Amino acid sequence: MERGLLAVISGFAGAGKGTIVSQILKTHENYVVSVSATTRAPGKGEVDGVHYFFLTQDKFDHMVSENEFLEYASYVNHSYGTPRSFVEEQLNQGKDVLLEIDIQGGRQVRKIYPDTPLIFITPPSIDELVRRLTSRGRDSAESIARRLQRAAKEAEEIEEYDYVLVNDEIEACTERLHAVIQAEKARVNRRQDLIAEIQKQAALLCNPS
Amino acid sequence: MERGLLAVISGFAGAGKGTIVSQILKTHENYVVSVSATTRAPGKGEVDGVHYFFLTQDKFDHMVSENEFLEYASYVNHSYGTPRSFVEEQLNQGKDVLLEIDIQGGRQVRKIYPDTPLIFITPPSIDELVRRLTSRGRDSAESIARRLQRAAKEAEEIEEYDYVLVNDEIEACTERLHAVIQAEKARVNRRQDLIAEIQKQAALLCNPS
Repeated sequence: MERGLLAVISGFAGAGKGTIVSQILKTHENYVVSVSATTRAPGKGEVDGVHYFFLTQDKFDHMVSENEFLEYASYVNHSYGTPRSFVEEQLNQGKDVLLEIDIQGGRQVRKIYPDTPLIFITPPSIDELVRRLTSRGRDSAESIARRLQRAAKEAEEIEEYDYVLVNDEIEACTERLHAVIQAEKARVNRRQDLIAEIQKQAALLCNPS
Repeated sequence: MERGLLAVISGFAGAGKGTIVSQILKTHENYVVSVSATTRAPGKGEVDGVHYFFLTQDKFDHMVSENEFLEYASYVNHSYGTPRSFVEEQLNQGKDVLLEIDIQGGRQVRKIYPDTPLIFITPPSIDELVRRLTSRGRDSAESIARRLQRAAKEAEEIEEYDYVLVNDEIEACTERLHAVIQAEKARVNRRQDLIAEIQKQAALLCNPS
């Protein structure tokens, strides 16, 4: 069983990264999205183990101390993290695991798995981002302002990523994400076993035993 | 007009790289394959400007001295090279240009365009390579032996490439090649203009003029 690929997906709030991730799960086999752990209470309709692993703060802190998170962040009221065991199991089963986290999380994951590709999803322009955030009508003016301020900060960090995908159209952007994952799986540093085998066989062509 | 991508495609003789390149030209828009220059005489059915640019040795040597090749190689009897002007024109027209050359050529291209991806196409195994070379029945035993010896040498150089694609099945391998080209176009170092524009617009969110 070939080990799956781990990839980090980030993007401005309103860039549509959640939609792209849902779409790739629907249209292509072999993907799973990592389920995060959180200490916040379940929201309406949120299912433990599906949307999040809902943990007490004690349990969360214990997992931190046992190094059981690939990455985590603690805010004033709540903590969020990516349980390492879930990701490891999926990778070992050959699944390609998408982590929907921000650059702080991406940096932590890179320390553990240095060749994890970091992928940033952006709308075609900031004007378009503003339009999407205001037109979906589910956010307050204050919430929109906060998201835009966060976007301004995130924009400064795009160069830390390996890939930037423009979400101009959901299907097209999903295919671009799939292309990136397939290409990453073909990178020479990930095909060392195959290369070694080819080289071993090829060497026998000139020096048959 | 966004500049196209230049990519080097190599592979063992018999790996099917010519077939994969033909297939991608047929099934996807935006690709062109570079036409090489050569000093050898046209073979049966070969058309000047389509299969090769057929040049005299004097003309070829002049182009070498004028630095008009992206890469070239001279053998005992003949010279081969990639005219820089053809490639430049296609890239400027936004075309993705595939160069079907070996690692020596790839190294020369990298000196001029350092971020050119180098892609190696291999059959699933050397046994399969031997089977393909012997079963197509168009090569003499001597020619097959020569190709296999060359393959043994090329195998040692696979690690110089960026990607290795297994040609287990033509359509699947063609899609993998297409994925690599699409992914390369999304790499952050190739999207600097977009990123700069997003950053400029995003900065205005916090400091509107």
